[in-house]
Amino acid sequence: MSYKQLHQHFLKISHFNHLDAICSWDQAAMMPAGGNEARGAAMAELSVLIHQLTTAPQLADWIAVAETESLSILEKASLAAIKRRWQQANVLPEGLVMAQSLANSECEHAWREQRKNNDWSGFKFNLVKVVQLAREEASIRAASSSLSRYDAMLDMYEPGMSSAKLDMLFGEVKVWLPDFIRRAESVQAKQKLLVPQGSFATAQQKELGLAVMKLLGFDFNHGRLDVSTHPFCGGVPSDVRITTRYDENDFMKALFGVIHETGHARYEQNLPPEWAGLPVGEARSMGVHESQSLFFEMQLARSPEFAQLLAPLVAKFLGHELNPVFSAQNIYGLNTQVKRDFIRVDADELTYPAHVILRYEIERALMEGDIEVDDIPALWNEKMQAYLGLSTEGNYRNGCMQDIHWAGGSFGYFPSYTLGAMYAAQEFSAAERAIPQLRNKIATGDLSELFGWLKHNVWSKASLLATDDLMVAATGESLNARHFKAHLEHRYLSGE
Amino acid sequence: MSYKQLHQHFLKISHFNHLDAICSWDQAAMMPAGGNEARGAAMAELSVLIHQLTTAPQLADWIAVAETESLSILEKASLAAIKRRWQQANVLPEGLVMAQSLANSECEHAWREQRKNNDWSGFKFNLVKVVQLAREEASIRAASSSLSRYDAMLDMYEPGMSSAKLDMLFGEVKVWLPDFIRRAESVQAKQKLLVPQGSFATAQQKELGLAVMKLLGFDFNHGRLDVSTHPFCGGVPSDVRITTRYDENDFMKALFGVIHETGHARYEQNLPPEWAGLPVGEARSMGVHESQSLFFEMQLARSPEFAQLLAPLVAKFLGHELNPVFSAQNIYGLNTQVKRDFIRVDADELTYPAHVILRYEIERALMEGDIEVDDIPALWNEKMQAYLGLSTEGNYRNGCMQDIHWAGGSFGYFPSYTLGAMYAAQEFSAAERAIPQLRNKIATGDLSELFGWLKHNVWSKASLLATDDLMVAATGESLNARHFKAHLEHRYLSGE
Repeated sequence: MSYKQLHQHFLKISHFNHLDAICSWDQAAMMPAGGNEARGAAMAELSVLIHQLTTAPQLADWIAVAETESLSILEKASLAAIKRRWQQANVLPEGLVMAQSLANSECEHAWREQRKNNDWSGFKFNLVKVVQLAREEASIRAASSSLSRYDAMLDMYEPGMSSAKLDMLFGEVKVWLPDFIRRAESVQAKQKLLVPQGSFATAQQKELGLAVMKLLGFDFNHGRLDVSTHPFCGGVPSDVRITTRYDENDFMKALFGVIHETGHARYEQNLPPEWAGLPVGEARSMGVHESQSLFFEMQLARSPEFAQLLAPLVAKFLGHELNPVFSAQNIYGLNTQVKRDFIRVDADELTYPAHVILRYEIERALMEGDIEVDDIPALWNEKMQAYLGLSTEGNYRNGCMQDIHWAGGSFGYFPSYTLGAMYAAQEFSAAERAIPQLRNKIATGDLSELFGWLKHNVWSKASLLATDDLMVAATGESLNARHFKAHLEHRYLSGE
Repeated sequence: MSYKQLHQHFLKISHFNHLDAICSWDQAAMMPAGGNEARGAAMAELSVLIHQLTTAPQLADWIAVAETESLSILEKASLAAIKRRWQQANVLPEGLVMAQSLANSECEHAWREQRKNNDWSGFKFNLVKVVQLAREEASIRAASSSLSRYDAMLDMYEPGMSSAKLDMLFGEVKVWLPDFIRRAESVQAKQKLLVPQGSFATAQQKELGLAVMKLLGFDFNHGRLDVSTHPFCGGVPSDVRITTRYDENDFMKALFGVIHETGHARYEQNLPPEWAGLPVGEARSMGVHESQSLFFEMQLARSPEFAQLLAPLVAKFLGHELNPVFSAQNIYGLNTQVKRDFIRVDADELTYPAHVILRYEIERALMEGDIEVDDIPALWNEKMQAYLGLSTEGNYRNGCMQDIHWAGGSFGYFPSYTLGAMYAAQEFSAAERAIPQLRNKIATGDLSELFGWLKHNVWSKASLLATDDLMVAATGESLNARHFKAHLEHRYLSGE
């Protein structure tokens, strides 16, 4: 039976993906610098093997025959996910893949120095090449999918999403966001917050992080916490590796980083074991993955109720309970401070969407050919002025050169961040309707029903449903901006 | 050119071996227990791939043609090492490899419980099967190599070694060893040693270990130190991973464990980079590898001169200098205590060879068919009585069930340990002749000439020379027991 052969073949690929995930984690979290060259060669060999297996000549026949076989609904979903994976790997000519790999890594590598030096013209020189190749990729993907060029790229990360839908979702946010930000700033101007005074020893911060991971249900029999320069969630569902980095002057960074990655981790740890290793058994999309990390970080952990759980833990590991800086109220205040600033990764919950919408608008126009690389800085400045009232004129480093995504050839990824925040708000709202007294339960540390809701509605569904079907089944409606708006309104404007 | 094709093919295999090494290290040092099943499946897939590549059908032709090509002396050595690797992988029928893999892992797995319960009859039941399959393997390897069955197995670990040579080398040791042990015990009965009183915090022990690794020239840009249940040296030459385990009551265990693994590590880190990834660029043999760990641990670090370097470091990290328990003299005394006991892995330098010779004699007779599994306990007891004056009657747990090697199907490995000790003594003696005032230099921490000698004579040679040629070039003579005897006499009997 051809479906069975495909099933076995993709399980085999997953074994090599497993080794790739562990060795990638090791490279970021454990490997000494001198090991990099040989590791790079070994991992490149593995990538070639995985690509060969994913594009093996017999797969076309197997898929064609499997589509005529009598399959269960779940097997049909699995076959569709396999076919999608196969198409994505097969559609690009090898020459283009090679050219992109070279151009992207050259641009990324040079960017690390160029950003420090605010060297836009040096960066631009490489980026033009990257964009040209990404447009070629987008054209090929568009031709094979009847999507527009940008939509074909977007679909890689967020299947089923389109710029028409994004225009609607983000368009609405754009209308009220600038006003929300100004109002929140004026509310917060009246508040008095106590700023924690360090230093906070790394070892103690790690203990605090582990305690919060435990509270959040992280399964330490199937995962661990380590350190890396850029925090991430890696590994495999049976062995999830999350990382953070510690700043001894500011414990909040590592703490909320750990909470964020724990959201990703619980999704991975609770994917359905019966589909492990198959494309249909993987997380639904980048946006849905981000919805889980933001559900944990924004919806749950930055709530006033969760602050009541955090306060005694922070006091236990970093201070003592009588210190008002570690009171639930002060921690909640610190957690929800709004500040318009240049850097996306440091942005708060309220200003973050502005950063993403700006990038979405620019990268879409770039892919569709409506603008050129030369136009980016002016557009960036114009949009930063409009959305956040900040000028980035001449400030490339903290403007259009701050992110690695475009340098690395990733166009269509940015929307996932804000889609994740919107999915998360809509999910939390549904959970709140489904679970009586949810906020009280959070305040007392009874999180089991909430996690049960996520497991039933999101984690256990993997990629068995289309994203829209997943959201309708979980929340009763397609994704919309209403719950996100209500959440931000409640959290940031209720003090007016 | 066929040799070039072989070269490229074995470099490709080395990339997969690299991933295998890192994931094996991770499994032992990092992986949470729940990750084991999926990891096992992923690594089994990789083993199959590596086996397929090593037995690829085109290799026979490539090797045959390469042997007619005009090659440099070094390329000829490389070709010979490739051919040897290929033959070893090809000679066994797949059915036997599969049967052994199953039987060995079943026996090993059951052994963990059976040993605790002193359950010889349960263990025997599985071991009979393991031995039967190992004899099949030995017969096949013997038939393809014109060696005896045991010698064919021995040759896997120690190419060029034979039981005829071992009988000569070990036979000599057997003559004087029991008397040496008794005399050393009576010398030491007069000594008074101060026993360090713990506890010694793991974090401090780790700092001490890192400081000693630094003193011993470990390259932290190409390696790291971690923790595992069974200490080992793993990873790849560009990224060597050593492990230890900490006992808070006894800091000597981890300290000398780290020193031992650092010896292995420096060999790996200093293999010639121009042959990296090729069989000829790997360490010469198990015995020569062990000679480097024992050179560091026994010849160098347990010497009275090195005790002068260790004492201030131990005092710095674990106590203070005025404490006589941390004096160089007391540390040297603790390092060289002789005690006849049951367990090989806990044995001191002087009694260790008795454990190995006993195993060699039994495993050789087993492979040659001179005895059966049923005969092991009585033979074990008889030899323990003769060599160490200890009875293991009925004490299987601390007798013939103490090691994992036979349960795992490894016959022919044990001699490497004592061969390593003998190589190390002969190498140190040659280094002492070559380096003026070597012992004084050690006492003052000037180890550069000693490491230079090892690098020139052993590390940089990889597998380019046959073991005997390596020893003759390095020390002026073939391996013999004279230097080992002189070393033990000097260290343990000079106090008579």
